[in-house]
Amino acid sequence: MIDLNADLGEGFGRWHLTDDEALLASVTSANVACGYHAGDPATMRRVCELAAERGVRIGAQVSYRDLAGFGRRAMDVPAAELAAEVAYQVGALEVFARAAGSAVAYVKPHGALYNRAVHDAEQAAAVVEGVRLAEAARGPGSPLPVLGLPGSRLLAAAAEAGLPTVAEAFADRAYRPDGTLVPRTEPGAVLHDPEQVIERALRLAGDGELVAADGGRLRSAARSLCVHGDTPAAARLARRVREELAAAGVTVRAFA
Amino acid sequence: MIDLNADLGEGFGRWHLTDDEALLASVTSANVACGYHAGDPATMRRVCELAAERGVRIGAQVSYRDLAGFGRRAMDVPAAELAAEVAYQVGALEVFARAAGSAVAYVKPHGALYNRAVHDAEQAAAVVEGVRLAEAARGPGSPLPVLGLPGSRLLAAAAEAGLPTVAEAFADRAYRPDGTLVPRTEPGAVLHDPEQVIERALRLAGDGELVAADGGRLRSAARSLCVHGDTPAAARLARRVREELAAAGVTVRAFA
Amino acid sequence: MIDLNADLGEGFGRWHLTDDEALLASVTSANVACGYHAGDPATMRRVCELAAERGVRIGAQVSYRDLAGFGRRAMDVPAAELAAEVAYQVGALEVFARAAGSAVAYVKPHGALYNRAVHDAEQAAAVVEGVRLAEAARGPGSPLPVLGLPGSRLLAAAAEAGLPTVAEAFADRAYRPDGTLVPRTEPGAVLHDPEQVIERALRLAGDGELVAADGGRLRSAARSLCVHGDTPAAARLARRVREELAAAGVTVRAFA
Amino acid sequence: MIDLNADLGEGFGRWHLTDDEALLASVTSANVACGYHAGDPATMRRVCELAAERGVRIGAQVSYRDLAGFGRRAMDVPAAELAAEVAYQVGALEVFARAAGSAVAYVKPHGALYNRAVHDAEQAAAVVEGVRLAEAARGPGSPLPVLGLPGSRLLAAAAEAGLPTVAEAFADRAYRPDGTLVPRTEPGAVLHDPEQVIERALRLAGDGELVAADGGRLRSAARSLCVHGDTPAAARLARRVREELAAAGVTVRAFA
Repeated sequence: MIDLNADLGEGFGRWHLTDDEALLASVTSANVACGYHAGDPATMRRVCELAAERGVRIGAQVSYRDLAGFGRRAMDVPAAELAAEVAYQVGALEVFARAAGSAVAYVKPHGALYNRAVHDAEQAAAVVEGVRLAEAARGPGSPLPVLGLPGSRLLAAAAEAGLPTVAEAFADRAYRPDGTLVPRTEPGAVLHDPEQVIERALRLAGDGELVAADGGRLRSAARSLCVHGDTPAAARLARRVREELAAAGVTVRAFA
Repeated sequence: MIDLNADLGEGFGRWHLTDDEALLASVTSANVACGYHAGDPATMRRVCELAAERGVRIGAQVSYRDLAGFGRRAMDVPAAELAAEVAYQVGALEVFARAAGSAVAYVKPHGALYNRAVHDAEQAAAVVEGVRLAEAARGPGSPLPVLGLPGSRLLAAAAEAGLPTVAEAFADRAYRPDGTLVPRTEPGAVLHDPEQVIERALRLAGDGELVAADGGRLRSAARSLCVHGDTPAAARLARRVREELAAAGVTVRAFA
Repeated sequence: MIDLNADLGEGFGRWHLTDDEALLASVTSANVACGYHAGDPATMRRVCELAAERGVRIGAQVSYRDLAGFGRRAMDVPAAELAAEVAYQVGALEVFARAAGSAVAYVKPHGALYNRAVHDAEQAAAVVEGVRLAEAARGPGSPLPVLGLPGSRLLAAAAEAGLPTVAEAFADRAYRPDGTLVPRTEPGAVLHDPEQVIERALRLAGDGELVAADGGRLRSAARSLCVHGDTPAAARLARRVREELAAAGVTVRAFA
Repeated sequence: MIDLNADLGEGFGRWHLTDDEALLASVTSANVACGYHAGDPATMRRVCELAAERGVRIGAQVSYRDLAGFGRRAMDVPAAELAAEVAYQVGALEVFARAAGSAVAYVKPHGALYNRAVHDAEQAAAVVEGVRLAEAARGPGSPLPVLGLPGSRLLAAAAEAGLPTVAEAFADRAYRPDGTLVPRTEPGAVLHDPEQVIERALRLAGDGELVAADGGRLRSAARSLCVHGDTPAAARLARRVREELAAAGVTVRAFA
């Protein structure tokens, strides 16, 4: 059993990027952009309505405030600012999720913030503080999980703070032997061969195993598999991953 | 009995504007900027925490997306975009209000959006749709009032949509004989003489009456009185208005 | 003889819109976005370098400051702010044009500012003041023409201020009988049938004539023809317009 | 003989920060904000006009694109983007400087970019590439100096690229023994005692010497002295520094 997550709603105003309709037919969890790296309010609303209709879980994809850089540029944001920015984004998305009859079910940092929170204890703690603010705003009995890389500072800080954590893996990203991702700026960071991506997805879902860039095997406790959807080819691949997992007898379902 | 409201949290990052601490000692309702014309997340958080501590009611001061113009430039925003933008801002503030143990208690448009929604039925309806989205997100039994000018399209649309409405008056703004505000671009639009402002506040709270720029009397059903706080002198004036109302036996209390 | 202009560089960071390479093979004048409705600095640089290489004239496509609305929402910007904003954008583009061995050869307002400056004398004058600032910055002997709708307040104000003016027509937009454009919010505003667009382009270049939405004929003094390029189909159409004009013996050349 | 520089025009729209009028009476070089960390176009225009009138030299104070953080948060901006962003800002300011009869006379990075370019060779090179683009845009015979910290990667890269360089010192900032600044996040980073600041300014202008935080002496080749002006007290201090330098027989004049 595995969850399938993808980034959605990553357009901004006149600009479109993700094929949200197609992705919602493939994934079980939608990481919805909240306006800081992408995602205008009207798009957030529409994606939440579609996701709620189709039973896809809604997650807040929080980012540095950086539309010009699509959130892909690490920033030295002071902890107090970062925590408040994270809470702001979750709150903004919560309105659309709840108005659509759903709710924000998890938080996943985007891009450079995701990568930074793997190693940077201060920023990881700030993200967690922001999630806890948003969780506190929901009232008791409404825990807010954090989705991230296994072994990251982020998941460690979240667990320490009493937040549920969900580990994820990437079928289309190359891994270093230490279990971290090969950065996008390096060659081979993103895998484009559909068959290879599908094989990796099946292996992960079946055996809990990933193959690193050096050929070594990595054990993975991932309960969610991230697929990309920011090109037409990527959205098609997401659909195929879903189909092949189903064909292999894997239950594709949002994490509990 | 009257409510006293003022705009708070209208700085942005390095820039400060309103003396939030001083205003929170004077007003019963705080119109907190939500990031579109002013108000960064860290400021929103701090203002909500202070307001909750002091028992001051928190309102969402929603605006056009216009930091460069401080929300004072009317914009032809399509209705669907505007509605989503309003809901986005309310949701973002709700996180900080609720995490502080309070909640967003009303919505008041800012600047050019406030003025536009007096006459423009389409934008008034869009604001109301945004408030209704935010209200729906809160679940049943949690109505979200709209604060605005009596006789405005905005309050009419809100009432029609089943939202509670609260009429407000300005002690330091000149009125036209038809009950609308003299625009800021005209001379005499803002009254600066403290004694005159206090006299007007007392008359409004006592007799439900305002004097227009032409000397005529206007009946006012205002349940809330707006004072400004964006200069040190304005914040001092807000305190004096509060004191003089109390001295005259008027109960200053947040609207029911 | 006619000039062919199109909007270029209308992406922003991660988001792409116009097929700049394809358009540069078709047009003689490139309206380059300057960062206010679209156009990040790296894109502006690249488009200027390509345009300079290919001998395509560079124009500054100036806009309201409105990335979220792509400059398509009219804004009540005070004249002094608007004039400075226009000059700011022209100056920013000038760096890339001149560093590439070319120069900004004209200014054309974008979207809502274009439409507003047709009728609004104050905003038209503000745009002209901005262009004059940018012209003054270039030193003597370096006039900066304004491209716009014939009969518009903008061209009238530009002429009055001593700026050269260039009238343009749209082969793929519907016209009202008074010579103004049918707004994009109305059905039929944009013509999508390639054959119809080409026929209109040929008629305009050959006979100086347009057909209005009601079938009536409009005389046009347009020296430049605007084609759109914000979709793959539009970029292909631009190429066909160029080819058909050439085949009909029309010289396609930047305006003098 | 020494130059006195300060940051000007650091407001944004409704928000004011620097007392530009007061500073222009004290300094010989004005580092004008260009819109990325502060500085709206109307303010840029006004500051340039005032500086030109008063014979104060105009410099472009370029920054990361970060209004929310006032350019004080280091960002991993890819070199090509950063170079174009620097050129964009210089070009935008050039319009106002030239329209006022002056010209951009130097470039100085702001805040986090200034600090990053002390040590980071890649970002230093990107800034220099941006300055060279802006220099190329001015045509031959119009060199564009870079103002920065002596010993920085930035000045090294500028010199290597053939750009003139100007070293500056800070009378009101604490120095480490290696000649770098104590970061603002550390206690004692900014000196507030006017007498101490004046003494340091005199010593620097007279003996070419600074005292580090540990009491050690640092030789300084600074040809420009930076004073701050973002508070009323700071602007008063700038005036006093100017007066005391003059009283001590130091010629305060823009660098050659």
